[in-house]
Amino acid sequence: MRLSPDARGVYPIAPTPFLPDGRIDEASIDRITDFYGEIGATGLTVLGVMGEAPKLDGAESAAVASRFIRRTRLPVIVGVSAPGFAAMAGLAKTAMDAGAAGVMIAPPSSLRTDDQIVGYYAQAVEAIGRDVPFVIQDYPLSFTVVMTPGVIRRIVSDNPSCVMLKHEDWPGLEKISALRGFQRDGSMRPISILCGNGGLFLDFECERGADGAMTGYAFPEMLVDVVRLTAAAERGQAHDVFDAHLPLLRYEQQPGIGLAVRKYVLMRRGLIASDAQRRPAGGLSPAARAEVDFLLGRLARHDARAAVAA
Amino acid sequence: MRLSPDARGVYPIAPTPFLPDGRIDEASIDRITDFYGEIGATGLTVLGVMGEAPKLDGAESAAVASRFIRRTRLPVIVGVSAPGFAAMAGLAKTAMDAGAAGVMIAPPSSLRTDDQIVGYYAQAVEAIGRDVPFVIQDYPLSFTVVMTPGVIRRIVSDNPSCVMLKHEDWPGLEKISALRGFQRDGSMRPISILCGNGGLFLDFECERGADGAMTGYAFPEMLVDVVRLTAAAERGQAHDVFDAHLPLLRYEQQPGIGLAVRKYVLMRRGLIASDAQRRPAGGLSPAARAEVDFLLGRLARHDARAAVAA
Amino acid sequence: MRLSPDARGVYPIAPTPFLPDGRIDEASIDRITDFYGEIGATGLTVLGVMGEAPKLDGAESAAVASRFIRRTRLPVIVGVSAPGFAAMAGLAKTAMDAGAAGVMIAPPSSLRTDDQIVGYYAQAVEAIGRDVPFVIQDYPLSFTVVMTPGVIRRIVSDNPSCVMLKHEDWPGLEKISALRGFQRDGSMRPISILCGNGGLFLDFECERGADGAMTGYAFPEMLVDVVRLTAAAERGQAHDVFDAHLPLLRYEQQPGIGLAVRKYVLMRRGLIASDAQRRPAGGLSPAARAEVDFLLGRLARHDARAAVAA
Amino acid sequence: MRLSPDARGVYPIAPTPFLPDGRIDEASIDRITDFYGEIGATGLTVLGVMGEAPKLDGAESAAVASRFIRRTRLPVIVGVSAPGFAAMAGLAKTAMDAGAAGVMIAPPSSLRTDDQIVGYYAQAVEAIGRDVPFVIQDYPLSFTVVMTPGVIRRIVSDNPSCVMLKHEDWPGLEKISALRGFQRDGSMRPISILCGNGGLFLDFECERGADGAMTGYAFPEMLVDVVRLTAAAERGQAHDVFDAHLPLLRYEQQPGIGLAVRKYVLMRRGLIASDAQRRPAGGLSPAARAEVDFLLGRLARHDARAAVAA
Repeated sequence: MRLSPDARGVYPIAPTPFLPDGRIDEASIDRITDFYGEIGATGLTVLGVMGEAPKLDGAESAAVASRFIRRTRLPVIVGVSAPGFAAMAGLAKTAMDAGAAGVMIAPPSSLRTDDQIVGYYAQAVEAIGRDVPFVIQDYPLSFTVVMTPGVIRRIVSDNPSCVMLKHEDWPGLEKISALRGFQRDGSMRPISILCGNGGLFLDFECERGADGAMTGYAFPEMLVDVVRLTAAAERGQAHDVFDAHLPLLRYEQQPGIGLAVRKYVLMRRGLIASDAQRRPAGGLSPAARAEVDFLLGRLARHDARAAVAA
Repeated sequence: MRLSPDARGVYPIAPTPFLPDGRIDEASIDRITDFYGEIGATGLTVLGVMGEAPKLDGAESAAVASRFIRRTRLPVIVGVSAPGFAAMAGLAKTAMDAGAAGVMIAPPSSLRTDDQIVGYYAQAVEAIGRDVPFVIQDYPLSFTVVMTPGVIRRIVSDNPSCVMLKHEDWPGLEKISALRGFQRDGSMRPISILCGNGGLFLDFECERGADGAMTGYAFPEMLVDVVRLTAAAERGQAHDVFDAHLPLLRYEQQPGIGLAVRKYVLMRRGLIASDAQRRPAGGLSPAARAEVDFLLGRLARHDARAAVAA
Repeated sequence: MRLSPDARGVYPIAPTPFLPDGRIDEASIDRITDFYGEIGATGLTVLGVMGEAPKLDGAESAAVASRFIRRTRLPVIVGVSAPGFAAMAGLAKTAMDAGAAGVMIAPPSSLRTDDQIVGYYAQAVEAIGRDVPFVIQDYPLSFTVVMTPGVIRRIVSDNPSCVMLKHEDWPGLEKISALRGFQRDGSMRPISILCGNGGLFLDFECERGADGAMTGYAFPEMLVDVVRLTAAAERGQAHDVFDAHLPLLRYEQQPGIGLAVRKYVLMRRGLIASDAQRRPAGGLSPAARAEVDFLLGRLARHDARAAVAA
Repeated sequence: MRLSPDARGVYPIAPTPFLPDGRIDEASIDRITDFYGEIGATGLTVLGVMGEAPKLDGAESAAVASRFIRRTRLPVIVGVSAPGFAAMAGLAKTAMDAGAAGVMIAPPSSLRTDDQIVGYYAQAVEAIGRDVPFVIQDYPLSFTVVMTPGVIRRIVSDNPSCVMLKHEDWPGLEKISALRGFQRDGSMRPISILCGNGGLFLDFECERGADGAMTGYAFPEMLVDVVRLTAAAERGQAHDVFDAHLPLLRYEQQPGIGLAVRKYVLMRRGLIASDAQRRPAGGLSPAARAEVDFLLGRLARHDARAAVAA
């Protein structure tokens, strides 16, 4: 099952669960993978930034990716961003051999000009092989690399194996409209656009033409709901669901500590055994935990899935 | 009326209204100043980043600041950040002579180490005069300068004229708790903390010990409500009001186009005559305007103040 | 006398001389301006970064530029980079009214994409007027904005008033070759290229096709020599002169304290009365002063002009 | 043989030689290792930035480090900087097991505050083990992390296994003086300071108290000479040797293409078989190669070692 440009729906960014001692928690990998399947996710992305990918060594990365892949029948995208092409190519081969549907590549933060960005993806594709479907990760807030719609079009045009954009520019709604405009005017072939950035604009992103979400919000059911309701033209309901979650989603989207919030909620929901992160890690103070609990309580009035045991 | 460390409440960041041809719109300055007084703002901040301060020349900056100051009896803080101390000192003198309550100073983005930041504020204070009350603007997302709580304490300790922190770090809740902890343990004298960052965390910031808000959200009435309700220990109501506004507030908080959203809403509310910005400016597409209108409509179901005429 | 694309030779970046109390030293402006004329400079650039332009207020900038312009018959380029277009346009008008030959514009460090850079210059030209000759300052090390040769070509093509590139990319030799290649293949009209970056690569820059130098090295006579000797195809002599100065030139080119070195040498040469800078300023320790003196002594063995009185 | 704070002399930064097809060139590793021993190097550093470390995968890194270590009796420092601590700890263990003398750790570019930097080194030391001698790499131009002398002192004080500073701040002479001052006033225990930055200030760095050089200039014999002559108080001779090399050294120190220059010269000297780099790589145009050849010819007039066959 290869990733293709007509991918849609919700690809949760899976966390990498750790035990309190820092070892990888394989049982939690299985549990959360099953969960994603049950709630209607259409795929899965592992070893992203929020999957703490840089904190794994090479062997661990391969093991984690393989375990997710084996556990699910959903297509799995594996993040293979690396400081160099040798490591990137090695992980891409391992992942594809293990059954991944495709890989995701973020630009290194040293890139500045349009040509540098386009050139980087050309070299990356040569490194991983032209037959491996790949996703562009466009996340300027984190990587400081800014891709115009025109640059994305150049990458898509130059590389037939580019099938998807993980869109997390901020602001980003006009970028979606611009890319869909390129498709309409025939200047770019269709690609899948799944949106990240914690889901903070998913309500409008879907309306602008995105195919869905690829982010790790701790209630991916909401992402599934919003994508489904928008596709069904139930605009009001889509926003109602989204708005109910926005206070918590906003809290989870804080840089630096967002993953701590996410893992804490996933732990409270019983989906992973521990909220441990490998270092360096942002932690939650007791006050922050209490704030998350408070937000969960308020959310539960609108969405029963948030009614986790105290 | 000098700004003092016991300032509290809401100091809206006032926009600088322009006419469509780029000239300053003095009538709108008067109108929005009156509005801020009517809704219970306790002060006003002008010539901030969101006041398009860098787009004014020296004479215009002085004129705008003076007009706001003359129009209101509220204390007015004037942003005096500048590439050099000569311009900063000149504007600070002009502003204080015109009756400003204090000035606000942001760090230049070239600063990196703790000592560089502390040293910069020492030189700035020498430039503007030790008798001019000033506000530290702590906004890493925009300025790329990261101040630890310890650095803020050093600035406060070194400079008796430092009376307030405009807090807009992200994440920032723990920073508020740390600074209030410094006050409790006696290692830092009390200062006022007003929160910016579009208000995105005002609900919890007040609970953590902030004295209020200093930001430009287009419905500052909500900021006043949240500060008041939190002070009155009406936690649930505070969050209810906040949550109702969060979808729009989040939309307005987008970098680059946030000011366009804000001015558009203020114009729709009749508080400024035009949403024109001077260049460079992020504009709103018709799709974006429709999205804002949609959010206003949804908000109006909870808050009648959002029911603006179509 | 308007700046034109056939400008060549050496345009020293003039320092702004200050008295020890921080006031502008007009007598030193006159003295160093005369000096530049005597040594064969073909023009002059004032209010550059190394002219401490951001440390002057608007009135001072106008006064300094005017004084340089009145004192010399050489064409004078005035740096008008500013945080906003109102201030830029104001200074450009003042400078041109006072008799400047053209202005120089650096990109703000927030620019990232090719389109943003091209768009910025379009707006700047609209602000200062299409009849004002201007220089692109391309200095990525300082501004973090990277312009490809293609981007420079777009700016040149879009704006007939663009007549010169102040080239200080690093590395930059291939950029000169690429731009001259554009001229040869007819895809870009000719512009003047003068090189900055402290002169660190002037020897090869001239060989690659640069028209000369625009930098502030404290022995601009050497820059004049290298440009002249290269034009006369005296390659060995050009490098001999250059190499003799390289140890000092390299010392002066240190970021942060380079201007302190430069002003100290200019003071020791009697060209300005004081090496005072306005704050923030990098200063020289006694050890650093002794190192500069030592380098001057060594240089004097090769170049009598460096034999300054102890 | 463990690296200790009394290390001195020259530790060349070894390149990683590649064959034109991208495979590691083991014969060239042996040849250049022997060369370093013959010219009087006192140690060796491998897998630095200029050793193209990020372009190797984990297994290759281990193989390269081991081959260098086995070939020489000199102490070998292995760069172990990595995006995460798991990879860092893994490579450190492999290297030390293979006989490395110590490891070198650069800070990730995300660090900003003093406390973040100090905290990062604390976590890194915990990851690699408190018994592994390590070197701080202080290279702000490349990493954008600025360490004050006070921060370095904190790292040294907190971590007994910190034995050396690879100093490549720019400007950096005052930092050396400050650190040696800390030692004199008893506030910091002695550490070894070896200087990088291409050697551009080695002449004065040694005079300020540095213990030698750790950089990859293609004529490391010159570095050895300068360190030796300075130690012997032959100041004039030290500068004469340095100045003769400065034109080429300056050319090699260009960011982005510096390694291409270095490998080209090493190839021309017969020390490595090919100047191939793995991608991404800056290449040399024919014009650039001719410039390097020209500089070699000029250098050969002063230093016979530069007389390489055409």
